[in-house]
Amino acid sequence: MKTIDLNCDMGESFGAWKMGADAAVMPYVSSANIACGFHAGDPATIRGTVRLAVDHGVAVGAHPALPDLQGFGRRVMRITPQEMYDLVLYQAGAVEAFARAAGARLHHVKCHGALYNMAANDEALSEACARAVKDLGGGVLLYALAGSRMMAGAARLGVGAVGEAFADRGYEDDGTLAARNRPGGMIEDEPKAVAQALAMIGEGYVTSLSGKRVPVKPGTLCLHGDQPGAAAFAKALRAAFKLHAIEVQAP
Amino acid sequence: MKTIDLNCDMGESFGAWKMGADAAVMPYVSSANIACGFHAGDPATIRGTVRLAVDHGVAVGAHPALPDLQGFGRRVMRITPQEMYDLVLYQAGAVEAFARAAGARLHHVKCHGALYNMAANDEALSEACARAVKDLGGGVLLYALAGSRMMAGAARLGVGAVGEAFADRGYEDDGTLAARNRPGGMIEDEPKAVAQALAMIGEGYVTSLSGKRVPVKPGTLCLHGDQPGAAAFAKALRAAFKLHAIEVQAP
Amino acid sequence: MKTIDLNCDMGESFGAWKMGADAAVMPYVSSANIACGFHAGDPATIRGTVRLAVDHGVAVGAHPALPDLQGFGRRVMRITPQEMYDLVLYQAGAVEAFARAAGARLHHVKCHGALYNMAANDEALSEACARAVKDLGGGVLLYALAGSRMMAGAARLGVGAVGEAFADRGYEDDGTLAARNRPGGMIEDEPKAVAQALAMIGEGYVTSLSGKRVPVKPGTLCLHGDQPGAAAFAKALRAAFKLHAIEVQAP
Amino acid sequence: MKTIDLNCDMGESFGAWKMGADAAVMPYVSSANIACGFHAGDPATIRGTVRLAVDHGVAVGAHPALPDLQGFGRRVMRITPQEMYDLVLYQAGAVEAFARAAGARLHHVKCHGALYNMAANDEALSEACARAVKDLGGGVLLYALAGSRMMAGAARLGVGAVGEAFADRGYEDDGTLAARNRPGGMIEDEPKAVAQALAMIGEGYVTSLSGKRVPVKPGTLCLHGDQPGAAAFAKALRAAFKLHAIEVQAP
Repeated sequence: MKTIDLNCDMGESFGAWKMGADAAVMPYVSSANIACGFHAGDPATIRGTVRLAVDHGVAVGAHPALPDLQGFGRRVMRITPQEMYDLVLYQAGAVEAFARAAGARLHHVKCHGALYNMAANDEALSEACARAVKDLGGGVLLYALAGSRMMAGAARLGVGAVGEAFADRGYEDDGTLAARNRPGGMIEDEPKAVAQALAMIGEGYVTSLSGKRVPVKPGTLCLHGDQPGAAAFAKALRAAFKLHAIEVQAP
Repeated sequence: MKTIDLNCDMGESFGAWKMGADAAVMPYVSSANIACGFHAGDPATIRGTVRLAVDHGVAVGAHPALPDLQGFGRRVMRITPQEMYDLVLYQAGAVEAFARAAGARLHHVKCHGALYNMAANDEALSEACARAVKDLGGGVLLYALAGSRMMAGAARLGVGAVGEAFADRGYEDDGTLAARNRPGGMIEDEPKAVAQALAMIGEGYVTSLSGKRVPVKPGTLCLHGDQPGAAAFAKALRAAFKLHAIEVQAP
Repeated sequence: MKTIDLNCDMGESFGAWKMGADAAVMPYVSSANIACGFHAGDPATIRGTVRLAVDHGVAVGAHPALPDLQGFGRRVMRITPQEMYDLVLYQAGAVEAFARAAGARLHHVKCHGALYNMAANDEALSEACARAVKDLGGGVLLYALAGSRMMAGAARLGVGAVGEAFADRGYEDDGTLAARNRPGGMIEDEPKAVAQALAMIGEGYVTSLSGKRVPVKPGTLCLHGDQPGAAAFAKALRAAFKLHAIEVQAP
Repeated sequence: MKTIDLNCDMGESFGAWKMGADAAVMPYVSSANIACGFHAGDPATIRGTVRLAVDHGVAVGAHPALPDLQGFGRRVMRITPQEMYDLVLYQAGAVEAFARAAGARLHHVKCHGALYNMAANDEALSEACARAVKDLGGGVLLYALAGSRMMAGAARLGVGAVGEAFADRGYEDDGTLAARNRPGGMIEDEPKAVAQALAMIGEGYVTSLSGKRVPVKPGTLCLHGDQPGAAAFAKALRAAFKLHAIEVQAP
């Protein structure tokens, strides 16, 4: 029986402002990437989201980001590898304390937004990120774009890495993600997104926007929790997985 | 042989701004309370300060505060016990990750500034703080004003608490600290401060500003690292302790 | 013909997080209190909200707050009168620049949340706030709780002050607001709230929760824009005002 | 008689952290660029620095920056022109309010750190910055790197711009600044820096690191107030200017 992880960014409310449909989506995922307070989230939100994840048997992950609340961590900042290391360690440590307080442990780290992309494309930044995860100890995993430099950086350091793929994003011929604003960059047709997920998990390929079969071996699929219909899409995915004897569980 | 802990607030620089004389003071103390980023400190400063402490065999503590960089955590904010719990857990977790990455462990938590005073005087806040320390696990200790509600709160929850006293502060008849701006509130005469420390450790009392002998049993003495002459005072204390066969070590 | 001002807190989104129904409510009010970035709002949101107000002929006001994004400016902080002055001047100046860029001018200042209540009850803080408004120059008005110390503070300094009352809040016998969680503290029945507004404007009194007629002379009524049905309530108020020949306009 | 402006970044303390020698340098400069709270500075520091400038007859400028306290505004962030506009307008407006409260007016805007360099090199960002200064109204000037795109952007919009040059920085053959870490990038020899200033002001050229005479027409010279010896260097410059009948005054 095949298995796949379903992950989703969670805990992205901040103070009085609410975002996402965490309670609706949590029942369908196997791992949660919880905002750490730098792009979103705050100590109270982290605590509540960790609690929700633990109550659903969902693996607790940290979702560190650049220090940019106003820009939601989406604006590229030129940081050094040492700054990357410090940012990841600080934020993951904070979430880990809440995980432990809830009787769980920190399962993985997945960078957010601009930090995710920066680490995917830069060797020094990716190694610094992997080193931070390694120094957390306890076998914490690193979720990273499948096929990216981050995967390679983790491998060099002996950090367990899980390659992430996207059911609802278009791919280029080289296996990178197509820009969101390109035609086909976002797959809004649910059956099509489900089919893409099944092809990636079951047969190890994705059909690029130009029609080429590109190999991809995802360990985890990303759900976009802030999209309308996130819960409905998650439900549809789970139903399709059941039909195809694919089990959903955290790595 | 008697023992005492010497603690000092450390890592209170922030970004480009420097504060304190951590490198000069670290050789003389046995435990460091490291700012966590809310009133001072940032991930890079935390890493450097943890490294410095570990290199000197000094116990690594977290020094959580109210979220008030501009006010240096000294302005009272009306927060709920739940907010106290969340603030302490988040900040202690962040510092703990750096401790572990440096091959050490988190030894204690000591609240900063307004948070310290609020917890010392309020039963619900003190219990919330102690609960956060308990939930960190691993036998992390709580440093608190000797004789305060925080000590009682820790005891009720079974959290190991260490009573803090001050060599360079005047005391009231009821064992509380005299206000800093009261005559005698700050003891700037070094021999007098050393004598007060020796009386507290060796004989278990402090002479209040009115001349009364007030019992006090400190487990740790606080050094003010941001005072000019902090290192010289620490050196003088250590010399006096040696003469009186008092060993300095973290609890 | 009688006139009244209708004001509403606006621009309380922050970065990626949305709050309030500004576009729906703006057509019904005569003055907008725009968040300045300390409890909510950010430069882009301020610009957009100022633009929206100017397009509807609504007076542009600044809505300064304590520096507490996470607590939405609702947590009391112990600040000095000088800090109050600095906070108000800084935030009002920032909003004023956007008003001028939009071809308008800064019309008024109304403090937010904990800052509003602190100024209403403390003589030194209220004077500091009024002094900041005075130093802005240009005849900027100060909106403050009708009958509060802030009104008196403004009067002493020669600052034009506008007394604020609430259609949807219960009052005590002494003219202060009843706590929100007291029975009758919030008036959710629309006709009742409209009737209270009409009594205050037309006859100069409000019926307290105990049934007493308490004199109140509001220069402005506050709409709560973050309540569901804010626009509908504003519409109902306007209709009632029309019937009773009460004109809505900024002072 | 020739005239030149001497400007210096000021007010870069933050809360409890002190930076710079503002009081020592202020007597020697003709214009002050005052940090606005985004990379440094806070409302109290702005007020004090404006007061100090006004007391010395020094022109009050705003020194807006990227929102990055921890990085002191030195880390490049990818922002849009609209974000540049909003950042400049917000920060300049805040400082302007303090200028007015002190009986002065806002004289100029000079971007800080990464924002300064980004605007110097990017056409869209430079125009957005100039547009913000224009929308401030009142003939506020824009200080920008002499010969940069920012100068051109200001000219296109009809904003008064003042070209900035550096006495203590080495220049490349094309008139750009040599990197600080290049040999000769920083001119630490005082007589040499004074001579460079005199050549720029008196004869309109600078000798590049390769020995070429490069034309430069500075309207203002920048003093680095955070360097040790800043006041002594300012004093030496003023003495040399007096000898050469160069008057120091704000444009």
